[in-house]
Amino acid sequence: MPDSCPTLRRDGDRVLILDQTRLPYRECFIGLDSLEAAATAIRDMQVRGAPLIGATAAFGIALALRDDASDTALATADACLRQTRPTAVNLHWALDRMLDTLRPVAPAARSAAAWAAAEAIRAADAAANAAIGQHGLGILRALHDAGRKPLQIMTHCNAGWLATCGHGTALAPIYAAHGAGLDVHVWVSETRPRNQGLLTAWELARAGVAHTLVADNAAGWLMAEGRVDAVIVGADRIAANGDTANKVGTYLKALAAHAHDVPFYVAAPRSTLDFGCPDGAAIPIEERSADEVRLIAGLDDDGAPARVRIAGHATRACNPAFDVTPARLLAGIICEFGVIPADALATVADR
Amino acid sequence: MPDSCPTLRRDGDRVLILDQTRLPYRECFIGLDSLEAAATAIRDMQVRGAPLIGATAAFGIALALRDDASDTALATADACLRQTRPTAVNLHWALDRMLDTLRPVAPAARSAAAWAAAEAIRAADAAANAAIGQHGLGILRALHDAGRKPLQIMTHCNAGWLATCGHGTALAPIYAAHGAGLDVHVWVSETRPRNQGLLTAWELARAGVAHTLVADNAAGWLMAEGRVDAVIVGADRIAANGDTANKVGTYLKALAAHAHDVPFYVAAPRSTLDFGCPDGAAIPIEERSADEVRLIAGLDDDGAPARVRIAGHATRACNPAFDVTPARLLAGIICEFGVIPADALATVADR
Repeated sequence: MPDSCPTLRRDGDRVLILDQTRLPYRECFIGLDSLEAAATAIRDMQVRGAPLIGATAAFGIALALRDDASDTALATADACLRQTRPTAVNLHWALDRMLDTLRPVAPAARSAAAWAAAEAIRAADAAANAAIGQHGLGILRALHDAGRKPLQIMTHCNAGWLATCGHGTALAPIYAAHGAGLDVHVWVSETRPRNQGLLTAWELARAGVAHTLVADNAAGWLMAEGRVDAVIVGADRIAANGDTANKVGTYLKALAAHAHDVPFYVAAPRSTLDFGCPDGAAIPIEERSADEVRLIAGLDDDGAPARVRIAGHATRACNPAFDVTPARLLAGIICEFGVIPADALATVADR
Repeated sequence: MPDSCPTLRRDGDRVLILDQTRLPYRECFIGLDSLEAAATAIRDMQVRGAPLIGATAAFGIALALRDDASDTALATADACLRQTRPTAVNLHWALDRMLDTLRPVAPAARSAAAWAAAEAIRAADAAANAAIGQHGLGILRALHDAGRKPLQIMTHCNAGWLATCGHGTALAPIYAAHGAGLDVHVWVSETRPRNQGLLTAWELARAGVAHTLVADNAAGWLMAEGRVDAVIVGADRIAANGDTANKVGTYLKALAAHAHDVPFYVAAPRSTLDFGCPDGAAIPIEERSADEVRLIAGLDDDGAPARVRIAGHATRACNPAFDVTPARLLAGIICEFGVIPADALATVADR
């Protein structure tokens, strides 16, 4: 993984992001030069992953305040960014931090304060990632030492450095284990409909970590065959009781892991915990465009990707972007403070 | 659904099949004129679905014996067809039937007998489909009468008329319910990596049955939201104890259904029951080409479907085509003799 932060960094009075919609086929950077550009980048998933969404929103505030740092401009920018995506609570966490920091500051000093506050959020996320990596490494080392060689880890979606400002959440322990010389192999699930598993495969290939791509459907078979030693996924919002919203399909993997006694971990920073949300039923689940489901490869007669049309009409599709995994299915939540039992999150509420 | 049998029919000394690899984008028929063509059609999934695979193999024997109906030719044809695909036991069932019928027949009469025996297998499958539809209708009518309106049924892969010689297995009760005026809606899962859910959407659109396409990952969320009243899937092989092999991803849906008290039914004819197989662990699971997983749509820079290459290398992929759902997760097996509890299959062993 890179030493700097290629997902998001300040470049003069702009913000440079790596356009994740072009990966893994092309590495393109985009310069964000306005509030609207930042909001679009989040909404269209040019940046994605709960921690990175939060940090991008923070930099979006800084972009918005460059020319007008009035109370009105601050409130407008906050409202614009807050409604870009509903599930990742890191977005709200980062915006709350920005408001708390900037409201007491005089408008003349707000622009500089906004850049500094956004940088602080970015740096804190990178530090949290590093701590998550070390705490997760303890779990993986114990499994490895108990004879699981290669240690077979399944993940879902992408919760690597692309999703954060550092080394990732779910992938941070895997990178730490690889760096420590453990023999690890990662099952990478495609993650339909947007195929973020390809981002994970791309990250792991660059880092030299052994991995295999599978259809999302294969998770149950792999676990039944005894070919998974642990599952680690990221999170978009964790309720006070430990119920966890993450990329749709996470819940099916958690059920299969539970059926086969495979430990299932969520790796996420404190900024993903939402103590205002009592349980999973209170987490808003984003439903995205049906076109994401309708775009299916390789079957069109001309060999071009086809939006599925049946009998001349676009097929109706339903596209929830997340699902909720109940706390009872989790072996623990790996955060920067350690590995917390899902029913004991209250111990970190004030941190 | 069509009145005749468009999936497979004799046309003089050839066999016409509907090429399912071109659907739903184009309806193409292929004339099979040799044993090799029949074996290729099965192996490359131009025909697919356990019952149709069995019937196609039977017609493959007839094709093989047109010019040489010796014992050697019969044995060669049987061996060739038997190794085309490993999981669907209907293939072995149909070939066993053909051997039992044809071995006692003098070579001079074998060709005619082979065509007749293949036609009998086809007709028996269509009759079994019709009976499955009526037995399944009883289940669906009871749910509908209990107030589930619209009655929300989830299926996986394609177990409709395209997979059989009649009205289908899993879809037969749905067609029967629609025909009886019940208000039904079907959740159609994409079924990666080969997207056979599109075949189901195509069938349902032609029949005017309301349906919605979802990513395979969405099944757990839909069940947790209370939006699924029953699941019906087909099967490729059912062991003596009721453990059922079906398209990969079936097991994940069964686990989710179990977690949410949604009844999960398997619909399959007697020819899918394998009493020589004690349990699911003894069912061979086909692993298909990694390229089926690597072909992912819409992300290539030129907008063309791309075989995933990461860091210059084709990504390693694993592609099990089936998984096994344990009998304990099944509400029942809908076969032509009725709805049989999964632990009571012995009652139909001699039928």
